[in-house]
Amino acid sequence: LTGSQEASAHSSSKPKKVMVIGGDGYCGWATALHLSNKGYEVAIVDNLVRRLYDHQLGLDSLTPITSIQNRVRRWKALTGKTIQLYVGDICDFEFLSEAFKSFEPDAAVHFGEQRSAPYSMIDRSRAVYTQHNNVIGTLNVLFAIKEYSEECHLVKLGTMGEYGTPNIDIEEGFITITHNGRTDTLPYPKQASSFYHLSKVHDSHNIAFTCKAWGIRATDLNQGVVYGLKTDETAMHEELSNRFDYDAVFGTALNRFCVQAAVGHPLTVYGKGGQVCEIIHLKFVLCNLFIIKLAIANPAKPGEFRVFNQFTEQFSVNELAKLVTAAGAKLGLDVQTKSVPNPRVEAEEHYYNAKHTKLIELGLVPHLLSGLAT
Amino acid sequence: LTGSQEASAHSSSKPKKVMVIGGDGYCGWATALHLSNKGYEVAIVDNLVRRLYDHQLGLDSLTPITSIQNRVRRWKALTGKTIQLYVGDICDFEFLSEAFKSFEPDAAVHFGEQRSAPYSMIDRSRAVYTQHNNVIGTLNVLFAIKEYSEECHLVKLGTMGEYGTPNIDIEEGFITITHNGRTDTLPYPKQASSFYHLSKVHDSHNIAFTCKAWGIRATDLNQGVVYGLKTDETAMHEELSNRFDYDAVFGTALNRFCVQAAVGHPLTVYGKGGQVCEIIHLKFVLCNLFIIKLAIANPAKPGEFRVFNQFTEQFSVNELAKLVTAAGAKLGLDVQTKSVPNPRVEAEEHYYNAKHTKLIELGLVPHLLSGLAT
Ligand SMILES: NC(=O)c1ccc[n+]([C@@H]2O[C@H](COP(=O)([O-])OP(=O)(O)OC[C@H]3O[C@@H](n4cnc5c(N)ncnc54)[C@H](O)[C@@H]3O)[C@@H](O)[C@H]2O)c1
Ligand SMILES: NC(=O)c1ccc[n+]([C@@H]2O[C@H](COP(=O)([O-])OP(=O)(O)OC[C@H]3O[C@@H](n4cnc5c(N)ncnc54)[C@H](O)[C@@H]3O)[C@@H](O)[C@H]2O)c1
Repeated sequence: LTGSQEASAHSSSKPKKVMVIGGDGYCGWATALHLSNKGYEVAIVDNLVRRLYDHQLGLDSLTPITSIQNRVRRWKALTGKTIQLYVGDICDFEFLSEAFKSFEPDAAVHFGEQRSAPYSMIDRSRAVYTQHNNVIGTLNVLFAIKEYSEECHLVKLGTMGEYGTPNIDIEEGFITITHNGRTDTLPYPKQASSFYHLSKVHDSHNIAFTCKAWGIRATDLNQGVVYGLKTDETAMHEELSNRFDYDAVFGTALNRFCVQAAVGHPLTVYGKGGQVCEIIHLKFVLCNLFIIKLAIANPAKPGEFRVFNQFTEQFSVNELAKLVTAAGAKLGLDVQTKSVPNPRVEAEEHYYNAKHTKLIELGLVPHLLSGLAT
Repeated sequence: LTGSQEASAHSSSKPKKVMVIGGDGYCGWATALHLSNKGYEVAIVDNLVRRLYDHQLGLDSLTPITSIQNRVRRWKALTGKTIQLYVGDICDFEFLSEAFKSFEPDAAVHFGEQRSAPYSMIDRSRAVYTQHNNVIGTLNVLFAIKEYSEECHLVKLGTMGEYGTPNIDIEEGFITITHNGRTDTLPYPKQASSFYHLSKVHDSHNIAFTCKAWGIRATDLNQGVVYGLKTDETAMHEELSNRFDYDAVFGTALNRFCVQAAVGHPLTVYGKGGQVCEIIHLKFVLCNLFIIKLAIANPAKPGEFRVFNQFTEQFSVNELAKLVTAAGAKLGLDVQTKSVPNPRVEAEEHYYNAKHTKLIELGLVPHLLSGLAT
């Protein structure tokens, strides 16, 4: 991104205040640092429950991560910038209300959900937990905005997985349908394939309703799978390091493949490997126009429900494995691939063509992974 | 309905077992009695929370209703038939599991939700309660079927309000879309307009997924507004009387109008009164092909997610008021109508054409309300 495309945090006299919900997580931590670095006033809201899932399942980030308190202290020591910390559960409305009343955010970027599809499918209690945590948490955020910060712009993280794999092109949030001689633009039909993905579908419906009913301003980012580890800010000190998940529950395909290649294990492709996933580098999640220029500096209008599909490239799992194999070869690694039975309920080969034109139109010049293999 | 269209409860050797979840409520109680009368083995599952809402809001049924224990005792005394009673919350999975394990239902008809749109819009805690109660309750029912009664057919009550008021015809659950030269049949887009209606949208998405993922057999009945009080069974004794809600929170338009006409109050029409609602008489909810012949005797196939729009007529609110006025005139009542500000977020005049062809095709010969005024 060129500098001119980036918005200033100081367009008015005082810096914009951004609440990063889920700011101790993979996307949220990098976002909080990046926004703080750019001059925004940042508060993190997180109940740290993600660290508990890791303990309970015996998983860990590949990169050691320190406590959120240490992270924020280290950031202050290095840059002089303060990130406020509200440790608590957004399903607890009293806690969330206090955070809204004391911080008074101009924008809330909401990453604070249970975000693993496999986790949501482990058993009944985790399925129910996932839907309760995500749906009720988001409802509370909507009510907090309505009660305490009516002008606050909600930037909500959705997922490309909300759409499933229809046999027609995937549009951005809405589709114009002509039927029996009449036409209307309606929400794009959703066919999610895990209790986690379904929780995002429920969120989208709830948010769209509150935009219409209460005039909430919201941007729903249907994000592709994020890859990559370092950003300018997280690379500044080991105590600022981001988490890196490579396990079967929280590790996404590309991160998992890279670790497998590095340690000499075969890449594990589920079933036929024809499943398509859309990907985006962590740096783009931060630097791209949505979260900063667009989603925060140019918020949705009151009552507007904007939907963006946020990814830069789409690959089949087999293609991703080939890219990692080629990249490994350059480093002198002999990377093998093996197929393992697919634990998911999904078609292993299907039509897939998702639009993300709004992102391109707005001037994003992505750094593409497909360059890697050439 | 002619007798030949009704299914027998004894097509195999032993009577079919039907669990009526929400069996202490308006639709559920009448359904439980009707099924018991027809020879099905019936169990009611209900936590009686609806009686609590009434206490808390200072509301009451127009018709005095006795305790569920008395109701079931009276039914046994009159007919010799036993209705089993499981008093508990379906959000409590331990309770629900015990009910499934001990009763072993062949079908579960699920009415057990908080069903008032105005109630869900009173405040945050009731909005959250409604979505939690309905979504988690239904998830638990799906998991109970999967764990304990894999063959059990779920008949779930949805609402016509899931569709909102699109500018194109409303189909039954699915719509075939041709887009950029490709075609697919996808879930009909949903635009619900209250936290209650949204909870039903969430349920539909969750159920559709479990049909695909686990092979659950389910029928989703998108039901119109139910009117009427007496059925053959509830008319047998005053202790079998059904509830009749006429208040602003739980009373639906037509029931409210009838009471207003009877007591000489003007009919209260919200705003312009152009809003369309689809209606169905309580007797049809019971006698119609769905719940008995179709939904119970001919269940959905494993993995099938069937959707029916269950109503017989559609009227604008103004037309309903006119019908009640005309019916009142025949009884010598001078019925007035007044417009009051609309408490809902809805277009007061809109295109509306909803299909319910599957119901007609299956042979239902409805007794129409429009006959009343002529
Ligand atoms: N990582 C990806 O590839 C990806 C792709 C698409 C969408 N997303 C979405 O982006 C968001 C962030 O993803 P991530 O990879 O950073 O996840 P993550 O698990 O690393 O971070 C989520 C954070 O939210 C917090 N949280 C969860 N429930 C909370 C609650 N009730 N109250 C307060 N805090 C709570 C967790 O403690 C955690 O720190 C998620 O909503 C996810 O669905 C991520
Ligand atoms: N009445 C209508 O006009 C209408 C129209 C369309 C759809 N429906 C649907 O039909 C169903 C029944 O409607 P009704 O008018 O009979 O409602 P009702 O309120 O009279 O009955 C619902 C019953 O469910 C029980 N219940 C609620 N939550 C429960 C829980 N967690 N565990 C156990 N029991 C629980 C209540 O105690 C109550 O007895 C609802 O799902 C409703 O949305 C009704």
